[in-house]
Amino acid sequence: MVILGLDPGLGSTGWGAIVREGNRLSHIDNGQIDTDPAAPLAARLLIIADGLRRVIDTIKPGAVAIEEVFVNKNAQSTLKLGQARGAALVAAAAAGVPITEYAATLVKKSTVGTGRASKEQVQAMLRTLLPGLKLAGPDAGDALAVAITHAHHG
Amino acid sequence: MVILGLDPGLGSTGWGAIVREGNRLSHIDNGQIDTDPAAPLAARLLIIADGLRRVIDTIKPGAVAIEEVFVNKNAQSTLKLGQARGAALVAAAAAGVPITEYAATLVKKSTVGTGRASKEQVQAMLRTLLPGLKLAGPDAGDALAVAITHAHHG
Repeated sequence: MVILGLDPGLGSTGWGAIVREGNRLSHIDNGQIDTDPAAPLAARLLIIADGLRRVIDTIKPGAVAIEEVFVNKNAQSTLKLGQARGAALVAAAAAGVPITEYAATLVKKSTVGTGRASKEQVQAMLRTLLPGLKLAGPDAGDALAVAITHAHHG
Repeated sequence: MVILGLDPGLGSTGWGAIVREGNRLSHIDNGQIDTDPAAPLAARLLIIADGLRRVIDTIKPGAVAIEEVFVNKNAQSTLKLGQARGAALVAAAAAGVPITEYAATLVKKSTVGTGRASKEQVQAMLRTLLPGLKLAGPDAGDALAVAITHAHHG
């Protein structure tokens, strides 16, 4: 089964796809959809939704996994994240793929073994779990981590 | 020109369409897209996006107007609103209709004449501005108010 992990953000939305065959995980592809901060909000959201639609059309995942949101103390940041998340979730739901949300602590525990790992620890462990991995960026790494979480718990 | 106003919310997304011919405004239609609180988040967001896509296909607006967000002090509410707003904006942007955002105070000023009007005052003024109006609900009323704002300022 192909699992697509998502890490939505207005500036950059990370995605990462793995395949689970029995107990073995392999990396398929990962990437980041970047949007221009100078572009209108709705145009940026459409780039996220259309970009993910293309990824889903290509990768054909059987499951989508996404991290539950850390509610930022900054209300404007939370609003931006919510809007990007809405665009991403609509793209996944429109493709008819089942979507599961995972708590951030579970994502860290599933990759590094502890719920309080740093981003760097998560990325280092991704390189161990998925040999030869080349990451498009930190958001793609977070997306792969949530895909691995789904492989273990989904 | 047909103007579609939107008032997105996860539980209920209001929409209202008017037409401006010279200085004259007429009501076309209004409604609310309700989602089941027991349904999965992504399914609710898809109902909002698909519902608005159908409204846009039917109404064929030349402009979409939406209120700038009042950033709620409750972070969970802000996140929910952001996600609904993301779904709605993607639907409008996918249809290629230009989208304008208006501050809530300007919306109230444009309908009631003061920036500090109550919801009831806005609805009473809508009935004066658009004779014979039947409102699907308060969110449809807020959507019509932002459409009227665009008619005056867009």
